Amino acid sequence: MGRAYVHGYDLRENIRLQDQAATLIELLHSDTFYPPGHSVLEAGCGVGAQTCTLAANSPGAVITSVDISYSSLCEARQRAMSAGHDNVRFLQADIFHLPHEQDSFDHIFVCFVLEHLDRPVEALRILKTYLKRGGTITVIEGDHGSTYFHPDSAAARRAIQCQVELQRRAGGNAMIGRTLYPLLKEAGYCSIHVSPRMVYVDSSRPQLVDGFTRKTFTAMIEGVRKAAIEAGIVEPDVFEQGIRDLYRTAEPDGVFCYTFFKSVALK
Amino acid sequence: MGRAYVHGYDLRENIRLQDQAATLIELLHSDTFYPPGHSVLEAGCGVGAQTCTLAANSPGAVITSVDISYSSLCEARQRAMSAGHDNVRFLQADIFHLPHEQDSFDHIFVCFVLEHLDRPVEALRILKTYLKRGGTITVIEGDHGSTYFHPDSAAARRAIQCQVELQRRAGGNAMIGRTLYPLLKEAGYCSIHVSPRMVYVDSSRPQLVDGFTRKTFTAMIEGVRKAAIEAGIVEPDVFEQGIRDLYRTAEPDGVFCYTFFKSVALK
Repeated sequence: MGRAYVHGYDLRENIRLQDQAATLIELLHSDTFYPPGHSVLEAGCGVGAQTCTLAANSPGAVITSVDISYSSLCEARQRAMSAGHDNVRFLQADIFHLPHEQDSFDHIFVCFVLEHLDRPVEALRILKTYLKRGGTITVIEGDHGSTYFHPDSAAARRAIQCQVELQRRAGGNAMIGRTLYPLLKEAGYCSIHVSPRMVYVDSSRPQLVDGFTRKTFTAMIEGVRKAAIEAGIVEPDVFEQGIRDLYRTAEPDGVFCYTFFKSVALK
Repeated sequence: MGRAYVHGYDLRENIRLQDQAATLIELLHSDTFYPPGHSVLEAGCGVGAQTCTLAANSPGAVITSVDISYSSLCEARQRAMSAGHDNVRFLQADIFHLPHEQDSFDHIFVCFVLEHLDRPVEALRILKTYLKRGGTITVIEGDHGSTYFHPDSAAARRAIQCQVELQRRAGGNAMIGRTLYPLLKEAGYCSIHVSPRMVYVDSSRPQLVDGFTRKTFTAMIEGVRKAAIEAGIVEPDVFEQGIRDLYRTAEPDGVFCYTFFKSVALK
């Protein structure tokens, strides 16, 4: 399972993820809660950007948050402890080779993980073995191909495409959000329900202008500048123009749109 | 005000609009209702695809539905009569030169009209003169740039771009949906609220697969085949491949996404 391109491995990325979670919590997670006593596997928790929200929304559930990175896991644990959550245990492990029996969990939660995998269907199949029959899987992914904005800009679209291309070369898929339904279907889940969560930003929503358009999305695209230029995917001046044009969409007459996809299915 | 490209002027288009309204009524219109006794201007009613929904949702409101086309208006009137709505009067007029006093209406409703105009801000400003102070305007528009699907296809994107380009050449803007906030702002409205209405279609929603992906969106793109090829915008084989690929998204593992934008603002 290729995980060459993984969130949360440097500080800048950590801050971005944290900002993102803070501004998107309600949109993405407010309808996820698990009953007291139920066991939940958070597969690929990274630095715990979603873990505290999970723990807070389901205080009676028993959450196991797993990541392969020791340093990410330390940060996730620290964050959960600071927030006073005592219903999460952290485990350093490959989420596809867990030290658990089959049919161990009532629920599985997977957020911003599949986008980095070269074989997402296989990943979903393996996770399914750890899920009890009748248990739920919740999958949340973004889709960079869902991005559009005003004023429109070919350079901005090129800059975004750099991120898509780099992720593709690393074995991932930055446009995976729209495919959750067929992926879960192919992996053998049933009762699949996909719920798109569109982030619409205009200047009447200043918190999202700053928190999403500028500090989450555009900051993320800016973050691939060096890699994209070194890989020869884009001319430096086109990339710079693209970044300026993305910031331009955060001006008073600008608009920015992006869609996350959230899916719940049963084993 | 250029209205060279107007919906509802031939039968095929009429059927498409009717199908569209039938499958999208809830998504687009279920939260629009006007109090008894209030006066409503439906500016650009065409063949009345939305008029019956307006009349049914607001049985006590007094609706004036205006269109410049006599034949469209006849069809709209026939449709409203068949449905038994007695709270709509129809008026053949240019919606920008109405035989009404200033400040005549409590509310204005504009749906799928601005996309065809070369000066949408001027149109909104003129409509504003007919609106009472404190009255509402509701504007609904699509945005073809919001379209994406699985499997992705460059040919399908090219075919869609034909429609965008033809509408642009006719003075319109098929990607106007995302710009409603700045347009209404520039036209001087206040308390502008934009609410995107995303149509997400996978095979768990068979009514939308057929009613939206196939019979509304793809049928609309198919409808520009002749014009696009004659204008030299696209090679015939690319267009045909694009149409096949759009129908492909309606297969069991396909996904289709499109977003309408609905906005309500005050004078």
